[in-house]
Amino acid sequence: MTVLALDIGATKFAAGVVHTGKEVRDVRRVNVPREDVWAACRDLLRAVAGDATITAVGIGSAGPVDVRTGITAPLNIPEWKSGFAIVAAVQELFPAAAIRFAIDGACLALAEHHVGALRGVPNGLALTVSSGIGGGLIADGRVVLGRTGNAGHIGHIVVPGWDVPCLCGGVGCVEAVASGMSSVRWAVAQGWQGSTGIQLAEDAHRGDEIALAALHRAGTALGQAIASAAALLDVDRVVIGGGFAQSGAPLWDPLRAALAEHARLEFLRGISVVLSDITNGATLVGAGVLATGDAGTDDLG
Amino acid sequence: MTVLALDIGATKFAAGVVHTGKEVRDVRRVNVPREDVWAACRDLLRAVAGDATITAVGIGSAGPVDVRTGITAPLNIPEWKSGFAIVAAVQELFPAAAIRFAIDGACLALAEHHVGALRGVPNGLALTVSSGIGGGLIADGRVVLGRTGNAGHIGHIVVPGWDVPCLCGGVGCVEAVASGMSSVRWAVAQGWQGSTGIQLAEDAHRGDEIALAALHRAGTALGQAIASAAALLDVDRVVIGGGFAQSGAPLWDPLRAALAEHARLEFLRGISVVLSDITNGATLVGAGVLATGDAGTDDLG
Repeated sequence: MTVLALDIGATKFAAGVVHTGKEVRDVRRVNVPREDVWAACRDLLRAVAGDATITAVGIGSAGPVDVRTGITAPLNIPEWKSGFAIVAAVQELFPAAAIRFAIDGACLALAEHHVGALRGVPNGLALTVSSGIGGGLIADGRVVLGRTGNAGHIGHIVVPGWDVPCLCGGVGCVEAVASGMSSVRWAVAQGWQGSTGIQLAEDAHRGDEIALAALHRAGTALGQAIASAAALLDVDRVVIGGGFAQSGAPLWDPLRAALAEHARLEFLRGISVVLSDITNGATLVGAGVLATGDAGTDDLG
Repeated sequence: MTVLALDIGATKFAAGVVHTGKEVRDVRRVNVPREDVWAACRDLLRAVAGDATITAVGIGSAGPVDVRTGITAPLNIPEWKSGFAIVAAVQELFPAAAIRFAIDGACLALAEHHVGALRGVPNGLALTVSSGIGGGLIADGRVVLGRTGNAGHIGHIVVPGWDVPCLCGGVGCVEAVASGMSSVRWAVAQGWQGSTGIQLAEDAHRGDEIALAALHRAGTALGQAIASAAALLDVDRVVIGGGFAQSGAPLWDPLRAALAEHARLEFLRGISVVLSDITNGATLVGAGVLATGDAGTDDLG
């Protein structure tokens, strides 16, 4: 009765043994290689499984995914970019196991719902704000998967004020304005000398005007996007993790101000937005919850 | 085994007998009076119930609502504006009945999911675009209620391009730009001579430039809001009803153009937006579905 969790990240695979559905132990990680990507993933799973009989595997993957076909197509893994049948491959490896598969954002929401800031919260949003912006939704006590498993793409909510082209091909997505990468790009265009979100936050804390403006812009856009999502889903708790979310008051003050300006409906008055305290491996924890759940849609909440 | 449906609208109450969970018969309607509002509602329910033993009642109400407490507080019914305990009142009237209560937008989504354009669609949006903008969500085969029952407030998604104050107290909500009332207000400010959304659509079809611009503005904002909601929920089918949605190409062409510009993620490529063919009483039909459903959250889809 051994249950595994697998996290397919942009640059790393992580896998471990699920313990009581809320914790993942014996975690091993490998870098995603350029070639023979599945071989690296398979070897990792075998090493974690050892001699145990595997009864279930939960897989959380960077998107896009298609949960209907069990295919993942992470943008940052070239060999898999046009689609890899991850569910079939893992099933072949562990024929007796139930395989459950979701996008990383859904796993993040499951992790927050089970061990993080959304514990006991039947309606909430979980965001990750780092080089990109992703997320997952808990609605009426369940994680929302969506038609193809891609629900939670909060990074592609359109926000007012900046007609910035987005990598998705659209215009004005919050990710194109407020991600770490987008903020760095904007600051550099204004003459800022630096290259990472961490530097940008440090410079903002030192009072650098361009860095402060970049974080103000990002926080405002995030607050607007959260207000839209909160009105649509009637949530009062939002949790944000990810590297760029650690930027402190220069990001969070404008975020809260924009949210207060836009989230004015009575049922949104008490909305709270908090920093995630799951510092590592949220997707893996969520994949573990998924593995022990009911058909991947019931989060046992 | 008689099941009733009740629709609490802004100006009218409607009630009827639910037939096979998908149709409401013997429908009666009364105007909402200025005073003794509950007495009018109660008399209507009694007239529809006749001598039958009522086993369940589904109530759909104009919002805001609080489904946790069973209180409705429709903005347009002054006597109930600060809150009326509708569930308790109906329960007292029919002590043996199971009472189920949701906002009108959720009932709209249930109606579209059971007898309309969202039949067989496990992930979809239902909108009503008339004097205001409301809606409801179907996610993973279930209607989304949200924390207080107010999920589906798509009218308060923030859209780019117009810093218009909204009645909710916020700024830039799609309802403040694209509803019939908002569009009329904007057109009048530009010098248009008219007072209703129907006139505005007629004038647009006649080629009036201000009217065309007003519908272009509304359609564009609707397309943007739908793109945001579709990315967040991973839906590919959106249905729109309501009087102002009948405005034809001058509204729908810019709506589809804005959606095509913004909904660029792979999983949104095939998204379709259609006009509702439920011409009358969608809330009542949805209240009937609610009455026959499982605790108000399982739509039996």
